[in-house]
Amino acid sequence: MERGNLFIISAPSGTGKTTILKRIIAAMTNVAFSVSHTTRLPRPGEQEGVDYYFIDKDAFAAIRQQGLFLEWAEVHGNLYGTSRSVVQAATGKGIDIILDIDVQGARQVKEKLGAEGIFVFISPPSLAELEGRLAGRSTESEAAIATRLANAKEEMKRIGQYDYVIINDEVDQAAEVLKAIIIAARSRNRRALSGEPLNLIF
Amino acid sequence: MERGNLFIISAPSGTGKTTILKRIIAAMTNVAFSVSHTTRLPRPGEQEGVDYYFIDKDAFAAIRQQGLFLEWAEVHGNLYGTSRSVVQAATGKGIDIILDIDVQGARQVKEKLGAEGIFVFISPPSLAELEGRLAGRSTESEAAIATRLANAKEEMKRIGQYDYVIINDEVDQAAEVLKAIIIAARSRNRRALSGEPLNLIF
Repeated sequence: MERGNLFIISAPSGTGKTTILKRIIAAMTNVAFSVSHTTRLPRPGEQEGVDYYFIDKDAFAAIRQQGLFLEWAEVHGNLYGTSRSVVQAATGKGIDIILDIDVQGARQVKEKLGAEGIFVFISPPSLAELEGRLAGRSTESEAAIATRLANAKEEMKRIGQYDYVIINDEVDQAAEVLKAIIIAARSRNRRALSGEPLNLIF
Repeated sequence: MERGNLFIISAPSGTGKTTILKRIIAAMTNVAFSVSHTTRLPRPGEQEGVDYYFIDKDAFAAIRQQGLFLEWAEVHGNLYGTSRSVVQAATGKGIDIILDIDVQGARQVKEKLGAEGIFVFISPPSLAELEGRLAGRSTESEAAIATRLANAKEEMKRIGQYDYVIINDEVDQAAEVLKAIIIAARSRNRRALSGEPLNLIF
């Protein structure tokens, strides 16, 4: 059995990443989200080891200090982290793992894993189009939309660290492209990457 | 418009490459075979610039000596070559080009283009399976089959120069994987590869 791949997927807010990822998880076998560690308390219905690994701040700090997180971040006072061993346990079973994280988290993973991870950026067709989509939701103030757009501009500057850029012009097509990237990755020639002896295949 | 990609595709004889490539060409837009130069005379119905560029031996030698072939070979006394400018003209129009060549030709292209080309090896599930398929055709002598198997073993040793290995266990699935590799390649982040400024996208 081949080891699974690790996909690190980022997108500016409002780009449609969540919709695309839900379709991928529903449509493909052997693809799953990574389960993060968090210091946040469980919400009703959330299950340990399924939604998150729930740990206290001391345990989180200990894991972090040992360098065992691929990436971590503080959000609204709670800590979230992706454990290297959780990812390795899943990929070791042949499951492709998706990390749905922002550009700062992706940068941390890139520093730790380099070419081992497959980095995918989902981009709006343009900032004007993104602004239109955010305004179209009409659930947010103009100030909030302006903040999201400013963040998007900053995030776009980090696009150079990604192996693939999917322009989400149309969600069905964008999901097909992400699916193709995942399928293609399963046929990458690990012999070429690893320098293993070439006669292993027979 | 994005530049097209160049795919170099090799497989041992009997692996099913021709069937897979025909399906890809029929099913996808903007994918075509490269048109080779040859010193062979045109057969009835063959068109200049469509099937081949038909040239004489002196012209072939001149192109070769100027290093303008990505690869060339002699087959049954005739010379065949892939011109770099023919490939560039097609990819410049946004067309993905497929070179259907053996491992020796692929090695020549690799030396000239390195990471610019996308190298795909189509492999039988095993040598035993390949032997069964060749014997199943029952159009060849045992000696001819033995020669093809010996060649296949040699070709498999060069698998390390390929970016992708597709195991042709089942032809529909193998064609889907090749299609995914082509689609994925269209979203490769050329900014990351080229070091271009990252703000070009907007």
